[in-house]
Amino acid sequence: MFDYTCETTCGAARAGTFSTPHGLIQTPCFMPVGTLATVKTVTPAQLAAIQPQVVLSNTYHLHLQPGEDIVAKAGGLHRFMGWQGPMLTDSGGFQVFSLSDMRRISDEGVVFKSPRDGRTIEFTPEVAIAIQNALGADIIMAFDECPPYPASVSEVEVAVKRTTAWLGRCMAAHNRSDQALFGIVQGGVYAELRQAAARAIVPFDLPGYAIGGVSVGEPPALIADIVRATTPLLPPDRPRYLMGVGSYRELRDSIAAGVDMFDCVIPTRLARHGAVLSRGQRWNIKNTRHREDFSPIDPECPCYTCQTFSRAYLCHLIRTEELLGYTLLSIHNIMELVSFVRKIRVAILEGCFHADWWPERFLEPSRSPIDTTDADSLGAAGDN
Amino acid sequence: MFDYTCETTCGAARAGTFSTPHGLIQTPCFMPVGTLATVKTVTPAQLAAIQPQVVLSNTYHLHLQPGEDIVAKAGGLHRFMGWQGPMLTDSGGFQVFSLSDMRRISDEGVVFKSPRDGRTIEFTPEVAIAIQNALGADIIMAFDECPPYPASVSEVEVAVKRTTAWLGRCMAAHNRSDQALFGIVQGGVYAELRQAAARAIVPFDLPGYAIGGVSVGEPPALIADIVRATTPLLPPDRPRYLMGVGSYRELRDSIAAGVDMFDCVIPTRLARHGAVLSRGQRWNIKNTRHREDFSPIDPECPCYTCQTFSRAYLCHLIRTEELLGYTLLSIHNIMELVSFVRKIRVAILEGCFHADWWPERFLEPSRSPIDTTDADSLGAAGDN
Repeated sequence: MFDYTCETTCGAARAGTFSTPHGLIQTPCFMPVGTLATVKTVTPAQLAAIQPQVVLSNTYHLHLQPGEDIVAKAGGLHRFMGWQGPMLTDSGGFQVFSLSDMRRISDEGVVFKSPRDGRTIEFTPEVAIAIQNALGADIIMAFDECPPYPASVSEVEVAVKRTTAWLGRCMAAHNRSDQALFGIVQGGVYAELRQAAARAIVPFDLPGYAIGGVSVGEPPALIADIVRATTPLLPPDRPRYLMGVGSYRELRDSIAAGVDMFDCVIPTRLARHGAVLSRGQRWNIKNTRHREDFSPIDPECPCYTCQTFSRAYLCHLIRTEELLGYTLLSIHNIMELVSFVRKIRVAILEGCFHADWWPERFLEPSRSPIDTTDADSLGAAGDN
Repeated sequence: MFDYTCETTCGAARAGTFSTPHGLIQTPCFMPVGTLATVKTVTPAQLAAIQPQVVLSNTYHLHLQPGEDIVAKAGGLHRFMGWQGPMLTDSGGFQVFSLSDMRRISDEGVVFKSPRDGRTIEFTPEVAIAIQNALGADIIMAFDECPPYPASVSEVEVAVKRTTAWLGRCMAAHNRSDQALFGIVQGGVYAELRQAAARAIVPFDLPGYAIGGVSVGEPPALIADIVRATTPLLPPDRPRYLMGVGSYRELRDSIAAGVDMFDCVIPTRLARHGAVLSRGQRWNIKNTRHREDFSPIDPECPCYTCQTFSRAYLCHLIRTEELLGYTLLSIHNIMELVSFVRKIRVAILEGCFHADWWPERFLEPSRSPIDTTDADSLGAAGDN
């Protein structure tokens, strides 16, 4: 259990598998986010048709509502939400540290006021692990300190030290052998601190490692630098997970630098604004040019939405604020990123993936350059 | 095409079939409402699993958005929304007359201001039929005058006369042999006017007849009186459709009086408020007693929601305002009313249906009396 096998490499890029109690994860993979035990607007049956390798959920949000006790009594997160494949829970670190006006950090942990009802809550490494043990995902994440951007070297240094100390406490608290605990490399935008953090946590000999604290407002180009500085120091026989990243370009560049797993709320969040991801582009279905366009978003996309509905119908649904529109665009956008990363996996297996690779159909000359999902659209960290 | 066959009767109740270009309709049946070419929050695939006999859509709403031209260019309503079974469009009469502050009625038709953009629109019998011919549903409805409740005898008399005159114009305007035009009996709460209206329109020899102008605020008990006064005057070899009715009791009582078809927004509207219809009851899933109830809404219900999710999970989704909750409750509530009427059909076929009939499991002694969906919850007529 929790064995990572690298099937093949293409430069630093890897195609591999990771075994979990709920099945094999083929990497690289894009993981849809189901913050509150639901990938927003999508049923588990619709999600299963997209065949994502893993689905995420969130410790912080589930602790506030409905509470991990209820999820545990339901038989765990898988049974509670009806998802039978592999699952991962984030530790809540990212969310708690985003509550900048309402929290107090110490070496012990973080005390914050619940944005829901104002009650005081303390998250420590022990608490974050206890919640995740109760939730029962296949992969759980260490409780880390995620510094904001910008932050000074000394501020980030403190966060790295704390994250390392907390990792030991997370390991000591963790009590389920059917869950893999991943450590998180912090270090902000400072390559040396990233490397120091990686060197500090790799000796913990964990089943997987994540790069956290990115997508917090820094210029997207810095993400690539951070990843390239970090991955060479992570063990080659463990999966690597870049947290919160989901634009076409960042996915490709990070895979080229040796990352295996990604998550991002972008496909579902964009859907709720009528925005479509397709063939490397991002555009809005509400636009007048789609009103009488009876072709699908992408005739080659195998998703239910593209196989069934026209742009004209989707334009109508979004313009009239029909909730079905959000469902149908979410299905498409998730399929788009899941299958984009799946195509990269195939390219790695076929030995033709490289740093400038794009799927052929992204490169039609009539199109504008590949769109980079801008960081602004990711919204506030507490959003989901 | 458009043949009604009565398979058997049980008192005045009938079990029959009605043939349409998109398949047979088995009656009695409950028709889910897809006002804007979508049954709110539910995909056509999810709807198909519930096996409703017919799905409704609305002339008035579709004329405003996206416009019947776009639907026609898409290949008609079936193709536009991805529903391959029988469809019915309402004429818009009910909606237009509900815009009481913004409309002017004459013998010619109704002039009103669009609540969407303020532009002036005229609906006449000819316009309502032209829109419905463009939309392409299997069954289309005559443009009628729907008086409010309360209304005086003389006001209702005018509406009945106008509705009759307009029916002639609707028939003259109607130009598609693959669509069945149904006439509508008006007459308010006055039995004599209902009967006069029925006698006036039956000679038009239409493929079906509706009872309209109910569920507009009158006491529910009056609906039964209206129905009982009207159905004996409608031809036995044509289907009868009671518009806008959808509580357990009204469905049962109206079927007992000889009605075959029903539509109501109640299952989807209630779902969006967290309200559940089950075994003759109506209750809210948000209630604290469901937080730790890991049983389904109804273990005997064959819907996706009951087969997959617990009350605790649904309670969580509705409390956190996750849109998936509205989808899952809509699926259940539609299944509930569709299968309630389907059970009545079976009881008629088996010869055991009668005026006091309820499904056995509605009658558990621990339960409170059968809930009548109160008229208030139907909301304003312009709502959908």
